[in-house]
Amino acid sequence: MASREHPLAPLREQLKKWPGIGQKAAQRLAYHLIKQSPSDVEAFATELLRVRQSICYCDTCFNISVTPRCYICEDDSRLRSQICVVANPQDLDSIEQMQEYKGQYHVLGGLISPLDGVHPDALRIEELIHRLDAPEVQELILAINPTVEGDTTVLYIKQRLEGMSIRITQLAYGLPMGADIDYADSLTLEKAFEGRR
Amino acid sequence: MASREHPLAPLREQLKKWPGIGQKAAQRLAYHLIKQSPSDVEAFATELLRVRQSICYCDTCFNISVTPRCYICEDDSRLRSQICVVANPQDLDSIEQMQEYKGQYHVLGGLISPLDGVHPDALRIEELIHRLDAPEVQELILAINPTVEGDTTVLYIKQRLEGMSIRITQLAYGLPMGADIDYADSLTLEKAFEGRR
Repeated sequence: MASREHPLAPLREQLKKWPGIGQKAAQRLAYHLIKQSPSDVEAFATELLRVRQSICYCDTCFNISVTPRCYICEDDSRLRSQICVVANPQDLDSIEQMQEYKGQYHVLGGLISPLDGVHPDALRIEELIHRLDAPEVQELILAINPTVEGDTTVLYIKQRLEGMSIRITQLAYGLPMGADIDYADSLTLEKAFEGRR
Repeated sequence: MASREHPLAPLREQLKKWPGIGQKAAQRLAYHLIKQSPSDVEAFATELLRVRQSICYCDTCFNISVTPRCYICEDDSRLRSQICVVANPQDLDSIEQMQEYKGQYHVLGGLISPLDGVHPDALRIEELIHRLDAPEVQELILAINPTVEGDTTVLYIKQRLEGMSIRITQLAYGLPMGADIDYADSLTLEKAFEGRR
């Protein structure tokens, strides 16, 4: 009988599917949401639908966007000589937050991972190579996670670009700022030694 | 210029207002939401609006409900002899999760807290006293947090009910299960001593 169910149960079940939201947090969020004014909840629901329906990928860099070209590609003040290659829009956001990088981006849409069925043709690598036809591109910065999948992807991209007269750089790997050598793992320490200058 | 803004910024700002959701979690949730199919997002937004618009308070116990009487008051199999008094619907949910209590509830809608401007007349204490007119009510179980506000509220209710032939009980205070006496605070230990049996 439907009336015997907790009135917030369906909402709670939906919230529990969200990342990092467990039973207790879902309950707290559900109560928070019903305490808001109906107009606030409507504003949120409308914004949610609007974003979901309007979101698309940038034609050029494949960042998320609400216009055919994303807000970064649209920005004429940014350098056209550098393209920073990232796995997903979240990584792009982190780099943007730094407020230091002023070039373009290219979002691969993932990393090569044969075990998960992600092969190179599922990523936007061809689109990246196509962008390098433009004579103004001088440097490709690979900002890819130092993981097995990341290393595989970096290796694949480097192989595909062999013979092209473009500078390819990678983010430096080493000790994070504020770290303690005593607690650093061997692999990080090895990378820090390799990259010493 | 609007197009220079991050497409998820407005959604992220709204999510950041939720309890326990910080900058990073808001970002993760926003990306999670736009990865869902438009129909899933629509289902969530619709459910959210439906719940918010249909939620009301039970006429009898003031639990949240979508019908004039909540799913507990509607349930004829529950005892009419006991009323458990709680501060808010969340506390009621916790007691229901125990699946042991089979009586009625009364939700006060808060606790007396003069500093926050919450006086007894802001709570549903008159409504509680009115419910005690029914001859079948034999026991009032006060399931109120052992805090300054909770103790004040308990004291007030007890004073108001003085002279009435109803059994008033309170939840036991003492060591939580699995606790270590060594680590218990003095106040809890004092309560555990007082309540020894």
